[in-house]
Amino acid sequence: MVNSLIGEGNCIGYAARDSSGFLSPYKFTRRPTGVDDVSFRVTHCGMCHAELVWLFNLMGDAMYPMVPGHEVIGVVTEVGSNVDRFKIGDRVGVGCFVGSCRECEYCNDGQEHVCVKHCILTYNGIDVDGTVTNGGYSSHMVTHQRYVLKIPDRLSPAEAAPLLCAGITVYSPMMRHGMNKPGKRLGVVGLGGLGHMAVKFGKAFGLEVTVLSTSESKREEAISVLGADNFVVTTKDPEVKAAVGTLDFIVDTASAEHPLDLYLSLLKTGGILSLVGICKELKFAPTSICLGLKTVSGSVTGGIKETQEMLDFCSEHSVTPMIELIDIDYANTALKRMNDKDVRYRFVIDVENTLHEL
Amino acid sequence: MVNSLIGEGNCIGYAARDSSGFLSPYKFTRRPTGVDDVSFRVTHCGMCHAELVWLFNLMGDAMYPMVPGHEVIGVVTEVGSNVDRFKIGDRVGVGCFVGSCRECEYCNDGQEHVCVKHCILTYNGIDVDGTVTNGGYSSHMVTHQRYVLKIPDRLSPAEAAPLLCAGITVYSPMMRHGMNKPGKRLGVVGLGGLGHMAVKFGKAFGLEVTVLSTSESKREEAISVLGADNFVVTTKDPEVKAAVGTLDFIVDTASAEHPLDLYLSLLKTGGILSLVGICKELKFAPTSICLGLKTVSGSVTGGIKETQEMLDFCSEHSVTPMIELIDIDYANTALKRMNDKDVRYRFVIDVENTLHEL
Repeated sequence: MVNSLIGEGNCIGYAARDSSGFLSPYKFTRRPTGVDDVSFRVTHCGMCHAELVWLFNLMGDAMYPMVPGHEVIGVVTEVGSNVDRFKIGDRVGVGCFVGSCRECEYCNDGQEHVCVKHCILTYNGIDVDGTVTNGGYSSHMVTHQRYVLKIPDRLSPAEAAPLLCAGITVYSPMMRHGMNKPGKRLGVVGLGGLGHMAVKFGKAFGLEVTVLSTSESKREEAISVLGADNFVVTTKDPEVKAAVGTLDFIVDTASAEHPLDLYLSLLKTGGILSLVGICKELKFAPTSICLGLKTVSGSVTGGIKETQEMLDFCSEHSVTPMIELIDIDYANTALKRMNDKDVRYRFVIDVENTLHEL
Repeated sequence: MVNSLIGEGNCIGYAARDSSGFLSPYKFTRRPTGVDDVSFRVTHCGMCHAELVWLFNLMGDAMYPMVPGHEVIGVVTEVGSNVDRFKIGDRVGVGCFVGSCRECEYCNDGQEHVCVKHCILTYNGIDVDGTVTNGGYSSHMVTHQRYVLKIPDRLSPAEAAPLLCAGITVYSPMMRHGMNKPGKRLGVVGLGGLGHMAVKFGKAFGLEVTVLSTSESKREEAISVLGADNFVVTTKDPEVKAAVGTLDFIVDTASAEHPLDLYLSLLKTGGILSLVGICKELKFAPTSICLGLKTVSGSVTGGIKETQEMLDFCSEHSVTPMIELIDIDYANTALKRMNDKDVRYRFVIDVENTLHEL
């Protein structure tokens, strides 16, 4: 690991140099700890589907070299003079963003992720000094205290990592739409990193959870391991028919094109489909939402206050992701497996034990 | 006009015989006034865009002969023994539906239009006795009292007619989403029967109203006659850019395919686009709703209680549609003009003076 946090090349990590997306060791410079900063040694970093989008430049906005990672867990090594919420040795986390204007109505309302001026992404973002941000596939981070989360002691750091993106991304719309009330009926589309967390939150909230899938293959695990109540294969007419009009809310995590009209038909009158996966285009018939007063609502991550509440909820209710802990030099293979949906359900990089000095 | 309300062929109207949609005189039979029924002589009937859909069988569900009309105004001629809210001579109205189960959670909540069992459409619907319903292009109607509206004295019957579909269709989602609070910013897509009512309700609620249009041609009228505050031509880049992120709510009444991503970009964070026009397919990028926590919400007409509230509101605040009063034998020409969007903004048929005994 790197000892000095000051000076050129004080941080090591894994970066992609171009849209091949291939990750390899990389040395770069983090700023010294500012008065409002928390510096921390990274111990774990979750691998998010966003990596597939940005590393391979699928949105055309990638900046290289790119050090990815926005599900970052670490241990505080230094704090600025204005910081009193954190001390050296604290277990901390950083999610999808590391900055915002801290002045607009949304920042003031704890919704920094929709700051009207600039929400600074944890990686592939433009920092206040104009440099490109680097994420948690790295030895340490220096982050303004406002965007640093406390990780409750009862959460294992490896399991806490995916909560910082996958977790909050499904928790936030469920809370916003009152889907934490026992007895309501939740549907989950896409049983990946986000989807399996939606099932877990659903059960923790006391909901009846139905997993909607295009194939039989995950039925057993969805029911027995994740605790879902029902499993509907959307290509099987009788199962779909029995589910029509039964759901209050659907968390739609699918990133591929998918039959939205079918999913919308499963909602009750007034039901809501919350879109959190980013597919290329949404298509559906107006009648699918108009006749039943239904809603398609978008969401993306969550604010810092809500993320902290979620972490505390997960700690208290033992809501944790299923993860596969990997070495950082396995990251390229892991990306390929993620792309093939061959992961149950989140890769987490063991940064502290496998990222070594160049 | 028809004198007897009893017996075969007791009602006359205009019907289409097939998907040519051509309307011609037609004699048919209405049921006698039941214990819960209100019978009324039709005086006026608005022409809704739905007529273009059903008369010409665009949805494939048309049943002929079809007597259209679901913006019906009349004068009570007879009431059943259980009816005490209406008496002979009262001015009444019937909107998009004439029946529902009256038992489900939605009926009990005054949302008969989304009754889980069967909301009986005013025309081209299946009545409780299995017959096909006939609408207000006719000499009289017999309707269960639950679905009959009182028309306030201060509303002219011709102007009241379009409120029963066009009016409630835009009023209901505005109320549901709290868009009756002064100072909020409303966008209106499509300046037709529904859209011009959305502008009028917006101004009556104290909103800042922006009309979004694909052409310059309606600017003058939107501002000077309807009272809109702003007019944005969506093909003009500078106008669109200035409007990005400014609107709380958009009432989207367009029935043709339209650029939803552009409209969604005009919403503030957390903004809502309420779809009330029925186009063939909706398409938009997930990022258009996810990044700003935006919502696309469907709506269709409204319940009886809310429709009555709307009528009373319109009476009190002088909110009335702009109409073109026509003879019933002009209806075929009017349909063509409606299809060409050549009406400002609603045709209303003067049934009482122009529908004569066959």
